Amino acid sequence: MPITTTRDDPVLVRACRGEPVDHVPVWFMRQAGRSLPEYQALRGTGSILDAVADPALACEITLQPVRRYGVDAAVLFSDIVVPYHLAGFGIDVVPGRGPVIAEPVRAEADLERLSVPTARQLAPVAETVTRAIAELAATDTPLVGFAGAPFTVASYLIEGGPSREFGQVKSLMHRDPALWGRLSDRLVQVTTAFLEVQIANGARAVQLFDSWAGALTRDEYRRFALEPTARILAWVASRGVPSILFGVGTGELLDLMASAGPTVMGVDWRVDLDEARRRVGGRPVQGNLDPARCLAGADLAVAAAREVLAHAGREPGHIFNLGHGVLPATDPDVLAAVVRVVHDEGRAGR
Amino acid sequence: MPITTTRDDPVLVRACRGEPVDHVPVWFMRQAGRSLPEYQALRGTGSILDAVADPALACEITLQPVRRYGVDAAVLFSDIVVPYHLAGFGIDVVPGRGPVIAEPVRAEADLERLSVPTARQLAPVAETVTRAIAELAATDTPLVGFAGAPFTVASYLIEGGPSREFGQVKSLMHRDPALWGRLSDRLVQVTTAFLEVQIANGARAVQLFDSWAGALTRDEYRRFALEPTARILAWVASRGVPSILFGVGTGELLDLMASAGPTVMGVDWRVDLDEARRRVGGRPVQGNLDPARCLAGADLAVAAAREVLAHAGREPGHIFNLGHGVLPATDPDVLAAVVRVVHDEGRAGR
Repeated sequence: MPITTTRDDPVLVRACRGEPVDHVPVWFMRQAGRSLPEYQALRGTGSILDAVADPALACEITLQPVRRYGVDAAVLFSDIVVPYHLAGFGIDVVPGRGPVIAEPVRAEADLERLSVPTARQLAPVAETVTRAIAELAATDTPLVGFAGAPFTVASYLIEGGPSREFGQVKSLMHRDPALWGRLSDRLVQVTTAFLEVQIANGARAVQLFDSWAGALTRDEYRRFALEPTARILAWVASRGVPSILFGVGTGELLDLMASAGPTVMGVDWRVDLDEARRRVGGRPVQGNLDPARCLAGADLAVAAAREVLAHAGREPGHIFNLGHGVLPATDPDVLAAVVRVVHDEGRAGR
Repeated sequence: MPITTTRDDPVLVRACRGEPVDHVPVWFMRQAGRSLPEYQALRGTGSILDAVADPALACEITLQPVRRYGVDAAVLFSDIVVPYHLAGFGIDVVPGRGPVIAEPVRAEADLERLSVPTARQLAPVAETVTRAIAELAATDTPLVGFAGAPFTVASYLIEGGPSREFGQVKSLMHRDPALWGRLSDRLVQVTTAFLEVQIANGARAVQLFDSWAGALTRDEYRRFALEPTARILAWVASRGVPSILFGVGTGELLDLMASAGPTVMGVDWRVDLDEARRRVGGRPVQGNLDPARCLAGADLAVAAAREVLAHAGREPGHIFNLGHGVLPATDPDVLAAVVRVVHDEGRAGR
């Protein structure tokens, strides 16, 4: 299905496609969840995986930031490890630590345990998306879906949890490129299944998180991460939905990541957006306010948001976001002030 | 004192100055310590600060990797928080976690607690350096000293420990630039006192670790980190000793860091050394083998080391090192194989 566009598409979708829009759209990575008091009131502590498995709860959490901030997208309340968890791989998400894998992937035999989730296993995701779309129907606000890119997901599955050095995953790549290839194939299958259930039920754009790709050299990205990522992004394009590819500390990789074919390149705060646009050949960009700049009060955050808008310029093709996820200590009133300044002063392509 | 050079200077010192050398010199960040069985046999677990306070022990740990690997430099066994600890600021280094500060810097009043260490407080460092220099006198191997750069040290002092987001330190910079300036002044004083005791007792080069500078935007580096770093590096130059400035993930900052005036720019594995040389205007470079590449056996590490040598080229001004510290799980035989290939095949400027 070719990508089609009408003037009735939501602002976010039109900005993803580089079309002129009345205001710069804005949403925040991790806008749903731990920084919102209404979220904490709703569910307290415990694994995010339990909340994700409850569609009524997950739908409500998805909608909370839309109501509070008036952002230009709802983002599915989920996690990149959810499809692996639902397929029974044995993953928990430990509050304050992240995903923890009971038996990490280390050898060929481990691929047999790594199943593609069935429609039945993905039913809670389908129902959450369906409920959220129904609630959003009265508005112009689209739902953005997401998944993890192969390298970033593999880093959790192989390391067994969050890592700073990525020693195990890099060792496996270099020691056994054939096994890495078969692992990547499986991750592409799982990722497309997870994205399909979101798109088929109404998600209007998807973000692919290759959060830790910035740990790779250019040579490693080219040899091990680019091709499976490109396959996923080509599949997303064939479904008629724009894609956003994002990672942290990817300044050295932006041109290579752009060559994987995302509609939009997500950028962290280390590269100014004018420079980022140059590196990705004029493709639309998303970002890139440092989330740490939202911890020192609304005035300083608004000033920092204005710097981002200035670097992005007035050409179309800018989606305002943070350069990484909302930090738990963030005051929601600060994000509300950022949304106001982006909506009032961000005038891309008008 | 101007920088002077003779053909009798150690290979490392001549390479720092961009002079032709018979072989590419090599040392490893964190070569002394936790990855060596002889280190573990010597001291077991416990805070590094206790070992640093014992000159006989610290001297022996400093020399162990020189004996084992035949590297081109001994590196003082110490830590960037040592001068703050010795001056009584209240710092512990928790194994597996890093520096932990009992009462972090948050306001003007905290500066009063941040003293410049006296000669008496620095005596254990002076004695360790003196002992190591005496042991090294029979060889051509120089001692490299080191200290932390203001931003990286401030990040520990303000956050209270290791951080991923640097929210507190960035907030303080932006909220109270005047306080940041006074804190920086104090950190410059402490850093030069710590380096002076190393240089006066015989260190032939020093590395300034701005390990976490890569978390800053270009604008933040320029406004908050560059000037105090430049002051330290100018002082080191005035002492007639070459300096190496190093940080992780600094691809976007290399030109700015070079403008702070180090003799050599340290580079992590994300930027190939031919590109790094271009960004720093042809200045000598140090690096940049990904430490994770040393976890998958000697053959793969040697292949990766050859890639580094190829990118560095044959021009003078390359010191081989890792792109960050030795990982604890590293097999010492792998590093020994890396030293051999660098000495046998690295022929910069011959």
